[in-house]
Amino acid sequence: MNETIEGILSHYSVREFTKEALTKSEIELLVKSAQAASTSSFVQAYSIIGVTDTKLRQELSAIAGNQDYVVQTGQFFVFVADLSRHHEIGKARGVETNSLSSMERLLVATVDATLAAQNMAIAAESMGFGICYIGGIRNDLAKVSELLHIPDYATPLFGLTIGHPKANSEPKPRLATALVYHENHFQSKTMDDFKMYDDTIRDYYAARTGGKRVEGWTDQIERGLKHPTRKDLKDFLASKNLGTK
Amino acid sequence: MNETIEGILSHYSVREFTKEALTKSEIELLVKSAQAASTSSFVQAYSIIGVTDTKLRQELSAIAGNQDYVVQTGQFFVFVADLSRHHEIGKARGVETNSLSSMERLLVATVDATLAAQNMAIAAESMGFGICYIGGIRNDLAKVSELLHIPDYATPLFGLTIGHPKANSEPKPRLATALVYHENHFQSKTMDDFKMYDDTIRDYYAARTGGKRVEGWTDQIERGLKHPTRKDLKDFLASKNLGTK
Repeated sequence: MNETIEGILSHYSVREFTKEALTKSEIELLVKSAQAASTSSFVQAYSIIGVTDTKLRQELSAIAGNQDYVVQTGQFFVFVADLSRHHEIGKARGVETNSLSSMERLLVATVDATLAAQNMAIAAESMGFGICYIGGIRNDLAKVSELLHIPDYATPLFGLTIGHPKANSEPKPRLATALVYHENHFQSKTMDDFKMYDDTIRDYYAARTGGKRVEGWTDQIERGLKHPTRKDLKDFLASKNLGTK
Repeated sequence: MNETIEGILSHYSVREFTKEALTKSEIELLVKSAQAASTSSFVQAYSIIGVTDTKLRQELSAIAGNQDYVVQTGQFFVFVADLSRHHEIGKARGVETNSLSSMERLLVATVDATLAAQNMAIAAESMGFGICYIGGIRNDLAKVSELLHIPDYATPLFGLTIGHPKANSEPKPRLATALVYHENHFQSKTMDDFKMYDDTIRDYYAARTGGKRVEGWTDQIERGLKHPTRKDLKDFLASKNLGTK
């Protein structure tokens, strides 16, 4: 097994960082790594905002549910699905830009932004940094967009916090490969298939909380279904001319 | 610069592979690498189909616009945004599953699938394989879903072909970092900002085609706007109960 795969397989999310900021050259290398990712038909439909301003970070942290590691971290990045450059080009060339509001384009921009983000995450971990994705900014994308001056035909998707970790941890066990990987045809799963994994996750939480947290994976998923979040996302995207067609 | 970042920065898409199939243990390592990626609130909302059947590959290749490297490759993977496991759990527990049709859940599943895919891509390249994403399967997702038996609350997103490359190439120049990376606030771009990059891309194509292809990046984007594709994606997703709320 090579160094790259060893790094990939030892990933865990880090939620406590020192105050040390990333250097300019570290940030440049991370952004270059992000940009090297594949991009659908070469459209490069994403942007990255590096948030250095402490007040901005505090406001973003509040939106994300008071996650301190948005404020105290090496650098906080926001990944943006961004079709605004394409809109600008269409306008300048007098070409109809309606299609930028299609679901196809929203998915393309989301995939492009995510490919870039994961390149950055892997690069960061290979440099010894810890990382954590912050989906919590989607709790109020209108406010995030206002804070970061996001234009039409673009939307923030998630944050990525990267910094010097205060402590080490270990990978969290994933679903058994047989539950995720299918050969030639999709094989639907039933509750029985998740039993063993529920035990694994129950043990994992118990070991990390001294027995206080008793929850399997299916319990977590059930909880998520009972408390749906971010119900206004479709309307917000429509307000940015995204995903309506 | 470490080995992992060197690999990330030297990425290029490969479109010609030898006939040699990936071994079972190579595929296992790639899927494990994919699964190690971050996942939103631990929902693991994706599945991966490994397509080994030649007839299936031929049908997928035809849908993607007759891309031979879907058929002759080491392994062809299809990445699926997959909330069907969550639907199964909700059903079994008697919990309302309406929220799985929200735009939030569609984006979460798309992001999860893409994080996993990019882990696999980087792992594959570190092993010496070439890779190419195949967005072309979105030309007819209804047909792809039928071929691969994709259930409700799930949709194929893209393919990823991985194999032994027939030849080496070099990275394609990306947008200048200043056009993609913003500090604290998004800075909108105008056509003037793209001029230098248009020259770079024109030179890149000219050098690779003996002067036959004369096209800047903005010309490519303009062409894409003039010929919108996959207009039925929103309706297809709705037929799978995705992205409607």
